[in-house]
Amino acid sequence: MKQIPPPSRKRLVTLSQILAQHSSENGKITSIELSEISGWTEATIRRDISLLQLHSGKSNGYSIEELRNSIREKLNLTSPDSTIHKCCIVGLGKLGASLLENSIFASSNFKIAAGFDSNKNRTEILTSTIPLYSTSEMESVFKMEKIQYAILTVPDEKAQATAEKLAALGIKGIVNYTNIILRLPDTVDVENVNVLSALNNILSRQ
Amino acid sequence: MKQIPPPSRKRLVTLSQILAQHSSENGKITSIELSEISGWTEATIRRDISLLQLHSGKSNGYSIEELRNSIREKLNLTSPDSTIHKCCIVGLGKLGASLLENSIFASSNFKIAAGFDSNKNRTEILTSTIPLYSTSEMESVFKMEKIQYAILTVPDEKAQATAEKLAALGIKGIVNYTNIILRLPDTVDVENVNVLSALNNILSRQ
Repeated sequence: MKQIPPPSRKRLVTLSQILAQHSSENGKITSIELSEISGWTEATIRRDISLLQLHSGKSNGYSIEELRNSIREKLNLTSPDSTIHKCCIVGLGKLGASLLENSIFASSNFKIAAGFDSNKNRTEILTSTIPLYSTSEMESVFKMEKIQYAILTVPDEKAQATAEKLAALGIKGIVNYTNIILRLPDTVDVENVNVLSALNNILSRQ
Repeated sequence: MKQIPPPSRKRLVTLSQILAQHSSENGKITSIELSEISGWTEATIRRDISLLQLHSGKSNGYSIEELRNSIREKLNLTSPDSTIHKCCIVGLGKLGASLLENSIFASSNFKIAAGFDSNKNRTEILTSTIPLYSTSEMESVFKMEKIQYAILTVPDEKAQATAEKLAALGIKGIVNYTNIILRLPDTVDVENVNVLSALNNILSRQ
């Protein structure tokens, strides 16, 4: 969506998550409530929502369902044909293993279709309903499963090489949990979620 | 820093991390190189850096050390008296345990001073050089250690209640790994790093 600027887009993604966790008697939510939950000003929230060009009015607040659907549609979070976006987790140490168990995927339009680890032992020891493979099988699994997104949870020293391998296999996006800033072609979109950046982001606001 | 807008601030935090991982023969880095590594345009990078009001020129690129120091200073990432910011990890499941082992803290000005879990058994089973406590000891440990930041890795159903407890103990910021959007007083700054938001952020850009 070219017309929605990145900061608004990011806030709207968070708002859609707030809406998914919120219910009310009349099915509505006000910008005051959204402000209290999110911490952003009412003006910011109203401006972000105005970018969605909702059709109905907002007496007594926004319809939770309509607002959430509108965000998901405008930001392309819902495919028109309800396709599930297939992801994989690469690196099955403690962090990767904890993500295998994350129940949030069940209620999302992302599906973890595979887990990979370079250590074959690790994939045999872990019990999961998600199929686990050795990293050496990545190419064939990617072809079979049509995996588009990867969650990178390998050790830092393997981050760049593994990301390059994923890029070569045509991955569209990587959620990067490692401490390394990856150097990748423009075709791969990276979202960094490392703990030090997160702490520094807080610190930079104080 | 009021005069640096949030998106620039966030990019500068990432740039400081890139600079920490980068070395070159002449100790310099160009905006072209920074653009290649980060994926942002040169114009964006030069504009962000111009906000730092560096004193020296930039023939053959920026001095890596000077640029990094300037970012850390201007964004308040380095305390004038080199104080270490004390953090704790709350919730020692697989994810929390993996963060206990994250070596990145050693080279940062954050220190993990404590880990907490509501299950006393868990704190006894885990081996770590970081002191581990039962959540019931949180108040006394916070007073003793002067902990200012928390990394929240509890199960989703405990997220809101735990965050409220942390807020009541005067925490300044929370890195929130849970899937829950927390509802907290303005005194607590929250940075969300949950995997679904990260995937949705990528999707919203495509």
